[in-house]
Amino acid sequence: MRYLVGSDHSGTAVYAVGGDTAVNLTALNPAIGGDLIGLIRDESLMESIAGDLADAPRIAVDSIVPALPVAAPGTIICLGLNYTDHIKEGGYDIPDYPALFMRGRNSIMAAGAPMVRPSCSERLDYEAELMLIVGKGGRHISEADALDHVFGYTVFNDGSVRDYQRKTHQWTPGKNFDNTGAIGPFVVTPDELPQGAAGLKIESRVGTEILQSSNTGNMIWSVAQTIATISEYTTLEPGDLIAMGTPPGVGHAKKPNPRWLKPGEVVDIEIDGIGICSSPVIDERDRPVKVAAE
Amino acid sequence: MRYLVGSDHSGTAVYAVGGDTAVNLTALNPAIGGDLIGLIRDESLMESIAGDLADAPRIAVDSIVPALPVAAPGTIICLGLNYTDHIKEGGYDIPDYPALFMRGRNSIMAAGAPMVRPSCSERLDYEAELMLIVGKGGRHISEADALDHVFGYTVFNDGSVRDYQRKTHQWTPGKNFDNTGAIGPFVVTPDELPQGAAGLKIESRVGTEILQSSNTGNMIWSVAQTIATISEYTTLEPGDLIAMGTPPGVGHAKKPNPRWLKPGEVVDIEIDGIGICSSPVIDERDRPVKVAAE
Repeated sequence: MRYLVGSDHSGTAVYAVGGDTAVNLTALNPAIGGDLIGLIRDESLMESIAGDLADAPRIAVDSIVPALPVAAPGTIICLGLNYTDHIKEGGYDIPDYPALFMRGRNSIMAAGAPMVRPSCSERLDYEAELMLIVGKGGRHISEADALDHVFGYTVFNDGSVRDYQRKTHQWTPGKNFDNTGAIGPFVVTPDELPQGAAGLKIESRVGTEILQSSNTGNMIWSVAQTIATISEYTTLEPGDLIAMGTPPGVGHAKKPNPRWLKPGEVVDIEIDGIGICSSPVIDERDRPVKVAAE
Repeated sequence: MRYLVGSDHSGTAVYAVGGDTAVNLTALNPAIGGDLIGLIRDESLMESIAGDLADAPRIAVDSIVPALPVAAPGTIICLGLNYTDHIKEGGYDIPDYPALFMRGRNSIMAAGAPMVRPSCSERLDYEAELMLIVGKGGRHISEADALDHVFGYTVFNDGSVRDYQRKTHQWTPGKNFDNTGAIGPFVVTPDELPQGAAGLKIESRVGTEILQSSNTGNMIWSVAQTIATISEYTTLEPGDLIAMGTPPGVGHAKKPNPRWLKPGEVVDIEIDGIGICSSPVIDERDRPVKVAAE
């Protein structure tokens, strides 16, 4: 299944996408609600509408404004260094354990929403990443069982403000500027992708300028290993988000000069088989207040 | 005002504490709800019951089982290094910006609840800390205005699993083991404490063994500076929690041998004028599952 959370004229709903059109699942059963957490917690909701899907009205995907797939994720955990070449370009050693950090709710926004360059820095950078949405929660999940805990996969732009990321050894500030991390728009269930979403081309672009181009098969820690590693220390909850790290080509490592995102540009992150997450970059001075709905 | 969130026989409620007894505020006005977020969002709820407080029934504070002051904090941000001597004992340089990391909801629990030493490590450590609860939210809060954004102060034990904290340069795993960070039980409003809760004695103890003993006046970054620094990058929300870092004397730096917490011990964190946060240490093998109510 390919899901899209978003709104047309009738409020935010969960859509099932097929080709260029989509069916409003929330209209078929309001218990599904306005984001994916309803289906994550109770997959039987899909069975309740299975008989209605074929004849349901369809609208153009392009007419749906994306919203966050999970409106209020409990925890957002990110791998910092998960592609060998990106580790080298950042000047880090290859570790034997993933570098893990967290993002807060205000740092993320839906695909299509503005990516805000803060007024205090010009060093806004993109990071193309695979993101997984936790389905069934748990602690001490084995690597063998881990993929049973994935609800779906989506696209993430782990937008980073590099000078604030390196103010100290802890990356938190640079990874948590309001409205810098774009998620979505499509969430694809595991049955439609290779195991662990490995082997998928992943790119970031501004227009025709290819900034990063790699393959999720190049990740050091697989999705299954990552779930096992994280759940060794914390109970994963339904709807938690895990970002799988970025390949080489980020702006701060470009030679001879860094390649920072500028207001007016649109950055696209694409993963084959999942979709494109586009974010228009704006200056904070043009929209200084966090918009809750994003 | 000195608040205590907890339960006796009648469900979780907000209490106003005076001496050894407390009044159930939620019973006076159910709109106050089962934790402090109601009062944080609408302080006028206190006015609604002001006339009833004097004659309300009082129960013994000791009969109340503490719960988390804010049941579902949006964000928990922690300063890692905020007392000069603690920075030196950890082998770090004194930075010109605070080391900031985040804890997730499953890593925290109420005062009195078990502090769980995980089965994968024996290096469970205590950290006595002042914690502030954000009242009015905001972005780009100036240092001059910052203290107007504090709802109250409480006690925090920033429990850390040291070998996992230093698996990589990012401290996230070691700071996020389930049920390692104790909060509470009392929340004291700013009017009852020195400005910025500075100048308060802060200690950690196991029984009569004093492990840390310092003063919140020794913090490098004040509460006001910290709020200004964090709100430069993120919008603070009502009920967010900010932990202010720990003084010297943590277990991993004890000479000649580290002093790890052991199952069966009870660790107490005390801040003068706020209260004592006690946590009995248990082995994960004796209670392997995260209990949501804690």
